[in-house]
Amino acid sequence: MLNVKNWNHVFKLDPNKSIEERYLKDLCESGTDAIIIGGTDGITFDNVFDLQDRVQKYDITCILEVSTMEAIMPGFNGYFIPLVLNSREKRYVMDIQHQAVKEYGDWIDWREMAVEGYCVMNEQAKVFEAAQCQLPSKEDVLAYAKMAEHMFNLPIFYLEYSGTWGDAELVRDVAAELEQTVLFYGGGIETLEQAKIMKKHADVIVVGNIIYEDVQAALQTVNACKQ
Amino acid sequence: MLNVKNWNHVFKLDPNKSIEERYLKDLCESGTDAIIIGGTDGITFDNVFDLQDRVQKYDITCILEVSTMEAIMPGFNGYFIPLVLNSREKRYVMDIQHQAVKEYGDWIDWREMAVEGYCVMNEQAKVFEAAQCQLPSKEDVLAYAKMAEHMFNLPIFYLEYSGTWGDAELVRDVAAELEQTVLFYGGGIETLEQAKIMKKHADVIVVGNIIYEDVQAALQTVNACKQ
Repeated sequence: MLNVKNWNHVFKLDPNKSIEERYLKDLCESGTDAIIIGGTDGITFDNVFDLQDRVQKYDITCILEVSTMEAIMPGFNGYFIPLVLNSREKRYVMDIQHQAVKEYGDWIDWREMAVEGYCVMNEQAKVFEAAQCQLPSKEDVLAYAKMAEHMFNLPIFYLEYSGTWGDAELVRDVAAELEQTVLFYGGGIETLEQAKIMKKHADVIVVGNIIYEDVQAALQTVNACKQ
Repeated sequence: MLNVKNWNHVFKLDPNKSIEERYLKDLCESGTDAIIIGGTDGITFDNVFDLQDRVQKYDITCILEVSTMEAIMPGFNGYFIPLVLNSREKRYVMDIQHQAVKEYGDWIDWREMAVEGYCVMNEQAKVFEAAQCQLPSKEDVLAYAKMAEHMFNLPIFYLEYSGTWGDAELVRDVAAELEQTVLFYGGGIETLEQAKIMKKHADVIVVGNIIYEDVQAALQTVNACKQ
């Protein structure tokens, strides 16, 4: 059973970006709880397969965040299925997922799956446009969090600022709404200090972009989650 | 905690239709598991309040199936929140519900709520048009059922043929997909024999229209659920 309740920190790797083996090793052995493989642009079967193949040499949980049906493959420790709660279109909250379940449903081991209720908070992010989002107000976000917890019983609510630094007060307020659903925060974490600020409220902090700019800084963020 | 797992049979009363007191008494005392108050057209605060007021004199679970925000009120034993899975529009699977949670979220006792994943199977039904549905194939329905059970952990999956007799084989196949999620069947049950056929596969059969045409026949359907 894929269980994220005890997680604190994850690194998100983009299969469309390259990373040296020594850095990948450092990330996998950093004490982070998992490596998530996922991205928005240029995701292919080949680049996902290649990255998975490299990560699985290390003793670390490796998760595929499914963004395109072309790049679904076996062999991961778990699969995250995103629903974009603040999309304008049913397509991004249900229809793509429905299509995937229709096609692969009989082969899915649901114990390996976790659904993420995404709120995309950065209008400039590629995913904001790709998933036809609309920017939610604070009240909108809190209501989505309530729905994730109480109506859909989602394991994960994901506040995604995607490359920009988010609103720590909002993260705090969302955290106060959630009990069973685990709060992921992603966006703009580039230092240990920033990691500490967001980790104060979010259950799990997601560190992504900085990996490709300053891997030592990225590695430092893991320390925000250690006693 | 609203728990429908042991239910077998419910009567659905339309607040926009009138029913004599003696018939209402018979329905409430028939041995059915609950009275659901819900409908598509002409639902107002006044007619819902009036019907609730009459039903609550009897010792029977009374549920409001929320179809319009204007007619939400306290005092029910439980509330069903429909999501129309086969709607074309996000509005009917998430946005109306989001609006309601935004407005009333702080007052909601979630233990009284149960979300229904609806599949509307009758193109001629008012609700089909009102919720901008598209008719799902058998494979579509089975995939929606899988999503209801595994992705959204919904307490109820509701196959709604709305006034017409449904496909018993499909009901059987959907039942085979569901373990935790309770299968409701509604549509065209007018006799004890029909009730028995659908009850063979569905966990809960919903009897509605026939109440207003032949209340004795409606009452007979309860016997399909008795040993």
